[in-house]
Amino acid sequence: MTPNIATSDLVKQYADIRKHSEEICAPLEIEDYVVQPIVDVSPPKWHLGHTTWFFETFILEPNFPDYKIFDPQYNFVFNSYYETIGARVIRTDRGNLSRPSVSDIYKYRRYVDEHMKIFLESRFMTEAVEPLLELGLNHEQQHQELLITDIKYILGHNPLFPAYKSEGTLPKPDPGNTEMIRFPEGVYEIGFNGEGFCFDNELGRHKVYLHNFEMADRLVTNREYLEFMEAGGYTDFRHWHAEGWDWVKQNNARSPLYWHYIDCQWMNYTLNGLQEIDLNEAVCHINFYEASAFASWKGMRLPTEAEWEVASEHLDWGSRWEWTNSAYLPYPGFKKEAGAVGEYNGKFMVNQTVLRGASEATPPGHSRNTYRNFFQTNLKWQFTGIRLAR
Amino acid sequence: MTPNIATSDLVKQYADIRKHSEEICAPLEIEDYVVQPIVDVSPPKWHLGHTTWFFETFILEPNFPDYKIFDPQYNFVFNSYYETIGARVIRTDRGNLSRPSVSDIYKYRRYVDEHMKIFLESRFMTEAVEPLLELGLNHEQQHQELLITDIKYILGHNPLFPAYKSEGTLPKPDPGNTEMIRFPEGVYEIGFNGEGFCFDNELGRHKVYLHNFEMADRLVTNREYLEFMEAGGYTDFRHWHAEGWDWVKQNNARSPLYWHYIDCQWMNYTLNGLQEIDLNEAVCHINFYEASAFASWKGMRLPTEAEWEVASEHLDWGSRWEWTNSAYLPYPGFKKEAGAVGEYNGKFMVNQTVLRGASEATPPGHSRNTYRNFFQTNLKWQFTGIRLAR
Amino acid sequence: MTPNIATSDLVKQYADIRKHSEEICAPLEIEDYVVQPIVDVSPPKWHLGHTTWFFETFILEPNFPDYKIFDPQYNFVFNSYYETIGARVIRTDRGNLSRPSVSDIYKYRRYVDEHMKIFLESRFMTEAVEPLLELGLNHEQQHQELLITDIKYILGHNPLFPAYKSEGTLPKPDPGNTEMIRFPEGVYEIGFNGEGFCFDNELGRHKVYLHNFEMADRLVTNREYLEFMEAGGYTDFRHWHAEGWDWVKQNNARSPLYWHYIDCQWMNYTLNGLQEIDLNEAVCHINFYEASAFASWKGMRLPTEAEWEVASEHLDWGSRWEWTNSAYLPYPGFKKEAGAVGEYNGKFMVNQTVLRGASEATPPGHSRNTYRNFFQTNLKWQFTGIRLAR
Amino acid sequence: MTPNIATSDLVKQYADIRKHSEEICAPLEIEDYVVQPIVDVSPPKWHLGHTTWFFETFILEPNFPDYKIFDPQYNFVFNSYYETIGARVIRTDRGNLSRPSVSDIYKYRRYVDEHMKIFLESRFMTEAVEPLLELGLNHEQQHQELLITDIKYILGHNPLFPAYKSEGTLPKPDPGNTEMIRFPEGVYEIGFNGEGFCFDNELGRHKVYLHNFEMADRLVTNREYLEFMEAGGYTDFRHWHAEGWDWVKQNNARSPLYWHYIDCQWMNYTLNGLQEIDLNEAVCHINFYEASAFASWKGMRLPTEAEWEVASEHLDWGSRWEWTNSAYLPYPGFKKEAGAVGEYNGKFMVNQTVLRGASEATPPGHSRNTYRNFFQTNLKWQFTGIRLAR
Repeated sequence: MTPNIATSDLVKQYADIRKHSEEICAPLEIEDYVVQPIVDVSPPKWHLGHTTWFFETFILEPNFPDYKIFDPQYNFVFNSYYETIGARVIRTDRGNLSRPSVSDIYKYRRYVDEHMKIFLESRFMTEAVEPLLELGLNHEQQHQELLITDIKYILGHNPLFPAYKSEGTLPKPDPGNTEMIRFPEGVYEIGFNGEGFCFDNELGRHKVYLHNFEMADRLVTNREYLEFMEAGGYTDFRHWHAEGWDWVKQNNARSPLYWHYIDCQWMNYTLNGLQEIDLNEAVCHINFYEASAFASWKGMRLPTEAEWEVASEHLDWGSRWEWTNSAYLPYPGFKKEAGAVGEYNGKFMVNQTVLRGASEATPPGHSRNTYRNFFQTNLKWQFTGIRLAR
Repeated sequence: MTPNIATSDLVKQYADIRKHSEEICAPLEIEDYVVQPIVDVSPPKWHLGHTTWFFETFILEPNFPDYKIFDPQYNFVFNSYYETIGARVIRTDRGNLSRPSVSDIYKYRRYVDEHMKIFLESRFMTEAVEPLLELGLNHEQQHQELLITDIKYILGHNPLFPAYKSEGTLPKPDPGNTEMIRFPEGVYEIGFNGEGFCFDNELGRHKVYLHNFEMADRLVTNREYLEFMEAGGYTDFRHWHAEGWDWVKQNNARSPLYWHYIDCQWMNYTLNGLQEIDLNEAVCHINFYEASAFASWKGMRLPTEAEWEVASEHLDWGSRWEWTNSAYLPYPGFKKEAGAVGEYNGKFMVNQTVLRGASEATPPGHSRNTYRNFFQTNLKWQFTGIRLAR
Repeated sequence: MTPNIATSDLVKQYADIRKHSEEICAPLEIEDYVVQPIVDVSPPKWHLGHTTWFFETFILEPNFPDYKIFDPQYNFVFNSYYETIGARVIRTDRGNLSRPSVSDIYKYRRYVDEHMKIFLESRFMTEAVEPLLELGLNHEQQHQELLITDIKYILGHNPLFPAYKSEGTLPKPDPGNTEMIRFPEGVYEIGFNGEGFCFDNELGRHKVYLHNFEMADRLVTNREYLEFMEAGGYTDFRHWHAEGWDWVKQNNARSPLYWHYIDCQWMNYTLNGLQEIDLNEAVCHINFYEASAFASWKGMRLPTEAEWEVASEHLDWGSRWEWTNSAYLPYPGFKKEAGAVGEYNGKFMVNQTVLRGASEATPPGHSRNTYRNFFQTNLKWQFTGIRLAR
Repeated sequence: MTPNIATSDLVKQYADIRKHSEEICAPLEIEDYVVQPIVDVSPPKWHLGHTTWFFETFILEPNFPDYKIFDPQYNFVFNSYYETIGARVIRTDRGNLSRPSVSDIYKYRRYVDEHMKIFLESRFMTEAVEPLLELGLNHEQQHQELLITDIKYILGHNPLFPAYKSEGTLPKPDPGNTEMIRFPEGVYEIGFNGEGFCFDNELGRHKVYLHNFEMADRLVTNREYLEFMEAGGYTDFRHWHAEGWDWVKQNNARSPLYWHYIDCQWMNYTLNGLQEIDLNEAVCHINFYEASAFASWKGMRLPTEAEWEVASEHLDWGSRWEWTNSAYLPYPGFKKEAGAVGEYNGKFMVNQTVLRGASEATPPGHSRNTYRNFFQTNLKWQFTGIRLAR
């Protein structure tokens, strides 16, 4: 969003993105909005309220005179921290909160959206507010992806295996053999330097020295992953990090998330319901330990994030977040911004691993080849995949 | 329920009790039906489904030819155990299940109720089925009480403190001084020996030898409990069981459940919302450790369940489940019945403590002076109170 | 201990009991004194120090003028609580404390024993002190039993299976069929009323009403318990309390403690090392859940503690602590004594189960038929056994 | 160790290193060898046995014909894994094992050392064995450092605060102001390329691109760290990683390990016992979260490991392991060796952070400027310090 974008474009962009979140939730029953099966998953109604709270708290309240908070209590429902109001301390466990109701949260969205529209067309919408607006919209898009991952988890862990949508799905074509693309040793540049929005963790553009490497032209398929499983991949400690091996044993891990072995056949819970595994599809919902173990079994490795970014223009990426072997750490010269916005990324730069690319759950236009996604190494509920390097 | 009860009475009794469960839920939002803040609390929709499953599984399915199960999958949603169906194992965490929806569960109730009505009026409703029918109805009543305790917990742990109902509540009158009623030493009889329904744990009528004892004519009030708190009751280990003292320290306990110290005043979450403490009301929502510590601080003790039953006709009981100092153990000659019904009570006869009486949440006519309620000693979410003895 | 016991007897009794504790430890390596494999087991050196601290703290310090504490720091090593000395807070995890050394603790014992001898022969040893002296000696005897149970646990959980002693052990003779002894219904008296020492929890003698019951004349053998195991006792939930069944599944329980299935044979770690199971021996090291499940499988039950005490003169007891189906609760009129001694028993009267009799690890003369031992229902490291009733 | 080292040198080097481990333990009581207060700390006797087991298992057994294993059972005591011998499965919790005794372990060391001496002088000691011998000696040196850190933890968490040694300690001189040394942007080389031993994780020498950076010429002192504490460093979330802030709150963290606030003064447990803080000394025993928060408070950052290595020849390093902001990851071209030795380093390359340099507990000659030490970010028991960069 640059200063020369017309107000009407801004209003439309805001409205489109906000509407998309609600479209994602359209197929849900009220009950689906409420539950939180694991701590990493948030209830859909919380996502809808939290993104709204972001616009209210960081844009309307400080910048729009006479704006009246929708409900002062929502602050400690939707900011996800412990709160102390006077002597009353209540832990807001997201999955235990039946109120505010879904209906109340949609009212909250209407209220904030109406005020945002007026605000965006007013003289109070100055250039100084634009970065926060862009951040708020990208924040909403991040939660759109989380809505999909979390809805899949909620429905996919229900014994009735309800479908989220019912579209015909065509079997994927055989992707053929993997080709390894070669890249020569030398100094490269990575990091964001374009126009438009990026997160602070993508700044600034800087040099890295890469040694000769090769990168697979496509992602690992279910067929290949099944070969790993059938070759005893989950029972041979040599392919695993020590921490990964502990994870395997403690969780009795033996397949990607959402795979169920029923009547001598591997089935896969998808957003269209329980289906047979599509062997040609890129494997999905594996964690970093599994991705690394698979690569070791293949005699390869995962790429670093710098290798991935350099190679990205030669790759067909976007269907899976691709695990790298890079820890999530600050780029040279990284600076946290002051205030609450400064907390956005920097504070998570320890013990997390970088994923690159995007997934089929990522909103269109949200990602780019400098985007740095990151998660803990044991998590599987994201649409994650494997690309090999050596 | 005795053989001479007319069919029309049976049908009406069934309909009345079933309807009452739904009336309890009438004030709820859909979202309130779904959540499970702690393991002891079940989501209201689970209670509605589970009680229905009881009639379907134990009455209709084995006794009503051609009855068609509403949904075979409901068995492992509503029987509260781990289930293995083929190679598919899913843990049915009650609070994580958004489906079946509330609407589906009400359809389930309609379906079962309609079939039950036909069944009760049919020739298949034999005398052999009556005990199970009675058990099912009493089981539903037990869950009616749990519906109220659990709804209170769900709403009372929401930071918005929504009210369940909004009735005017009159302050209670001062109950005056406690009188101690004396009972002489001797052989007494306890246990059920009347007509009508009782649970297996109340059988059989048997002799016990009681020594001289005295029993308070009324329950301990909030005023008295507040005196205990202000006298440092929660910080003086001498009044507590060792296990209770550990509980105090680990939970930083300092008041009954639902009490909040706000702006220098003790407030109480009630079904009518957050209110000032009514000092004349019987103290509620304390666990066994707290009841025992209070009694010790008063230089008294809790009654045994035999003392309570012998004294009961002289007591005004029914507003609070009264903690006894009796462990929940089998009466002489206790026999588990064969089959699933035999699991009803006997398997819980270890490390639980008996409560006697009834509470304001107990459905009318459900309890009696031989009724043996029981819970773990650390639990507070029931409508529990204290009666002193010495 | 009555007033007419001569001083020389007192001195000898004290010396004998104190010496016995050290004799129990004589076969140990220094290292064996130090470790604490589970929280229920204490390191032998802690037992030796703690019992000494009892005499120093409750007898010498308050009653013997000019007595000088051996080491003021020992107070927070040997009293087993958290301690705050100024701003310094250290948790004294017994099993992590290498100091005081075993040698220092024996010096501590010498020091206290020498002062106790002088004290007992002095004018300061008044009648008022006698109850505390008796309590201290019985306390030391309780820890003698714990020394044996804990040493067995420490050595029996070492992969080298070191023997504590190496005596020839003769196979037990076949005990023959069990006879059930009958006792008629009526009012009986239980509780201590003899001369000599008893614990406060055995007082006072009081009446109980018992219904007709039968009691086995001998304990359940390893042969019988093995039949239970081989009949699938650990896999049939019907015989277990709900809580016991959870325990079975969580711990993958399948045999008594110290049993190891090696090379197609059940072996048993004993104080003489790893040996074949002696089928004629009374089964040992089972918890309450297992004892109850075995009784249920046999179509019988465990006795109550009142039944046991009434029947005891007809029983051959003393080799195993016998699980009863009685919760550990106060007798009518039970009074906690004031001060630290009052904490001895009463504070444990919740969620524990009574064992009656004595075991082969109990010091001679320590127990009696009114003795009330108690443990949590999941514990197996005591020398516990099963006697059936019905 | 290169082929031209004479056998007599080898024998001496082996003997010297082995002797040093025992010298470290000379001041201990037997009891100190046994305990394990936290999982990261191993009992000293385990270190002595485990390093011996390494030589026996990887050198003597496969290379020395007719060598007889000292005790086959030691394998599952000293290799630190779960073991299955027939149907017997015992978890060898290191801190619960009183046997083998300290005396037995010294016998084990004698036995292996005597055979190693004979082996090293024999024709079986070929060049092929040398890398393993070097690894074994470096492995022993690593455990020498752990012996010191673990002994400090064991004694420093005893309420008696026993001293490990009693040497006069001179106060440190004031180190003066910190100077920041500047390094220009460009391509540098890091990684091991010298003669002699290195670990696999230091290979191979490779290029990295560094941007302009500055590095402090000395470590942060206790005085500076105390300023951070007194300025509220532990209560201002803005300086902490989200994960670090959780750690602070859960552990109520407020100072380095071994600091105790006693009588209004910060005291420090050292190997010479409890002493006043030496303000001029480099701060020690802080974890990565604390090091990062301190750097943030100073408006600086921690160096990367590449920066540290490039700068190292200009630094006075060796008294503290210096936290870097680099995750422990493989260098380009890293290859795991085959077999058990290959497990040495690579399997830990996830969720750990690199420390560079050496500490006062590191054996002389063991470290070098390419050495990559690594630990979890929450651990404090190593001799860790802080060097600032920007």
